[in-house]
Amino acid sequence: MNNTDSDKPIGIFDSGIGGLTVVKRFLTALPNENIIYFGDTARVPYGSKSNSTVIEYSLQDARFLLSKNVKAIVVACNTASSVAIDELRKTFDIPIIGMIGPGSKAALKETKNKKVGVIGTRATISNSAYAKRLKFLDPSVEVFEKACPLFVPLAEEGWIKKNATFEIAEEYLNELRSKEIDTLVLGCTHYPILSGVIQKVIGPNVKLIDSGIASVEIVKEELKKNNLLSQRDSGGESIFYVSDIPTKFKEIAELFLGKPVNGITKVELETLTV
Amino acid sequence: MNNTDSDKPIGIFDSGIGGLTVVKRFLTALPNENIIYFGDTARVPYGSKSNSTVIEYSLQDARFLLSKNVKAIVVACNTASSVAIDELRKTFDIPIIGMIGPGSKAALKETKNKKVGVIGTRATISNSAYAKRLKFLDPSVEVFEKACPLFVPLAEEGWIKKNATFEIAEEYLNELRSKEIDTLVLGCTHYPILSGVIQKVIGPNVKLIDSGIASVEIVKEELKKNNLLSQRDSGGESIFYVSDIPTKFKEIAELFLGKPVNGITKVELETLTV
Repeated sequence: MNNTDSDKPIGIFDSGIGGLTVVKRFLTALPNENIIYFGDTARVPYGSKSNSTVIEYSLQDARFLLSKNVKAIVVACNTASSVAIDELRKTFDIPIIGMIGPGSKAALKETKNKKVGVIGTRATISNSAYAKRLKFLDPSVEVFEKACPLFVPLAEEGWIKKNATFEIAEEYLNELRSKEIDTLVLGCTHYPILSGVIQKVIGPNVKLIDSGIASVEIVKEELKKNNLLSQRDSGGESIFYVSDIPTKFKEIAELFLGKPVNGITKVELETLTV
Repeated sequence: MNNTDSDKPIGIFDSGIGGLTVVKRFLTALPNENIIYFGDTARVPYGSKSNSTVIEYSLQDARFLLSKNVKAIVVACNTASSVAIDELRKTFDIPIIGMIGPGSKAALKETKNKKVGVIGTRATISNSAYAKRLKFLDPSVEVFEKACPLFVPLAEEGWIKKNATFEIAEEYLNELRSKEIDTLVLGCTHYPILSGVIQKVIGPNVKLIDSGIASVEIVKEELKKNNLLSQRDSGGESIFYVSDIPTKFKEIAELFLGKPVNGITKVELETLTV
């Protein structure tokens, strides 16, 4: 790659708006980088879809970002990371960073008693994506997984302090609490929105791992290694594309990103599927 | 239409599996009819998508059913009914029955004090689909609407008796309770799964309207009027098509249909979109 490649944007895609919690981490840690975000809101959620469908959609999403000339792609969707990352790496010749690897490495750095919990969508958990990676990296670790399908709609409702949310978190996390885990991976990009509730229910001695934060560190390393870190000394720009603009989209997007979202462009699905 | 048209199946489509609660009503009320069901599980939910997307998908779903030679189409999805039914009727020349009309008529038959509540997805409620229809049919009726986005994932979790479900129902229905409604329309095909909780929280004096039950009555009338009621004297058959078979699909489908679901066929999305 030549010198100007470092000026290219970082591409980030997700099945919907959850990946905006990851964008938020990038804006903080790599403020001079340009970001192109694509949220596949017309086809969300990926978590309840079959593996072949998730792979097909992920390839389309990545191709869209490449058409915007990105220098690296972050798969800010745990389902797509767990199901499609090998296929993406096989197909495209730029750094591709998922959530599973970075989140797993961060969890292993943190755990003292080698008992790690993982929560995520049904798809992520039924694939055992984090468990496999954690055990591959450290066969002595014990992993306890739990699917928490209601956390996504709770986050999108913005119910971050309601009784019902605590009740549901109790229901889901009770089992993990009894396993005496000391580290809990938030294996879905929506979950950082509920981290207050999750921390309170799981207890103060359990360290929460935000895979979005972990992925920024890996992206930094990768870009540095490839001489691709931006040399820009002013703030970068973010551009947001989605495949549909549903009811309440802006409100939820701003809750997730933690700041106003302007200039969202809708991409027609036909342009993705050809 | 000729004599044998009455032997053709009734087509029922939904954005996913919620419409199976409607199929359940048809199996009880019209046991001799053949049923072709199409659930667009690859593209569920419609409730969070824009109107133009919902119309496009609904036309594709109806075309798929017509390719199976159906004599009538039931739009067993409140979002599609509220957004796409005019376009469907303009495009296709067979009886097309939605959820909004039948549910509204049933509510008006039931209410004594002319105060009707409606609950549904964000899309159905933000379109005021039921409120508009109810007021069109009876301008003196007062309508109180509330979106309950968490009810769909709660139904799919099968959490029909949990504390958290009651807490969430309290949160959503509190406002409606204070309006002294005597009738409540379940404006989403998932909601009959939670009718026990909803009835308990809204109180015993409020009559719940299941639009699925209401739609069967209208379909019966329409078929009779057009000499299309099946003359078969044995039980009809049901065939199920879906655009994706996600994790836990069979389990949830059987909860919704109330009996075993066999022989589900996956339809490739490409065949819908051409």
